[in-house]
Amino acid sequence: MKRVTFLLVVVAILASVIAFTVPASLRADDSAAPIYVTKIPSGYRDWKFISVSHEAGNLNSIGAVLGNDVAIKAYREGTLPYPNGTIIVALHYRHAPSEENDRIFGRAQSFVPGPPTNIQFMVKDSQKYAATGGWGFGHFSTDGKPGAEALMRTCFPCHAQEKARDLVFTQYAP
Amino acid sequence: MKRVTFLLVVVAILASVIAFTVPASLRADDSAAPIYVTKIPSGYRDWKFISVSHEAGNLNSIGAVLGNDVAIKAYREGTLPYPNGTIIVALHYRHAPSEENDRIFGRAQSFVPGPPTNIQFMVKDSQKYAATGGWGFGHFSTDGKPGAEALMRTCFPCHAQEKARDLVFTQYAP
Repeated sequence: MKRVTFLLVVVAILASVIAFTVPASLRADDSAAPIYVTKIPSGYRDWKFISVSHEAGNLNSIGAVLGNDVAIKAYREGTLPYPNGTIIVALHYRHAPSEENDRIFGRAQSFVPGPPTNIQFMVKDSQKYAATGGWGFGHFSTDGKPGAEALMRTCFPCHAQEKARDLVFTQYAP
Repeated sequence: MKRVTFLLVVVAILASVIAFTVPASLRADDSAAPIYVTKIPSGYRDWKFISVSHEAGNLNSIGAVLGNDVAIKAYREGTLPYPNGTIIVALHYRHAPSEENDRIFGRAQSFVPGPPTNIQFMVKDSQKYAATGGWGFGHFSTDGKPGAEALMRTCFPCHAQEKARDLVFTQYAP
């Protein structure tokens, strides 16, 4: 409980600092129409590793988060906000038990990527994506189709709560 | 059950095929002393992404598997056995709930890498590591120290059961 309170205080302080120091062009502008990422950035499967994630419950997802060179440099140097040109991609798969591994290990313990479910991007361009905190959000189903408007509208309000990390949930895994 | 039987049959067939086609130099030689990987290969944190894994139970681990260029090429082209020079690395972390994400999502669902636990390598050199199926196994704790002999002896017998994939458990995530 103390840790949660501490985190909330830290988040609140950082959020205030950012609110006072980030130029207006980087802040969300609710009056402008949001622009989404509708084309898959090329070469993302060769990008470097940032972290992994496991979302239990309904999402039932396991994933990897990779970044282009601008993203990796910013992560490693702790640069905030992320510079224009940063692209972060999350590759999501069904969180699937591995019968094969479990048989060899002799117990049910191993989960691996099942079928891919979607690929999501965050592209930093403080001008172009000013309406959504400087980030363009992208969601693509396995057939490469971009997410529908209704889905895309849910990205920014959730990420906006992670203001202290410039709207990015994923932290760098050492 | 049918799927398990089918998999076992496939594994058995592939194992026979490999037993008849892999040259003797690539096979495990129980008479020679095993050689382990005792120096961390350089640059591994920049390697490309192969897959993710989640080991529940006692291991309670989430990890990423990366490969050097030789490994990635072999994975993408389905080359078996993996060529000499292949190096695969598994970065392991404690499977930790993210209080911060859960608070924003409004439910307990998010697991992320906690503290790193160990880094493991498989290095292919069919001559040098002939005693262990052509693979040199490496395990390093977070302080960079290689695993003790007793631990290292456990790598090969388990991986050897994955003969149909040249002793490699991890499959390529698309």
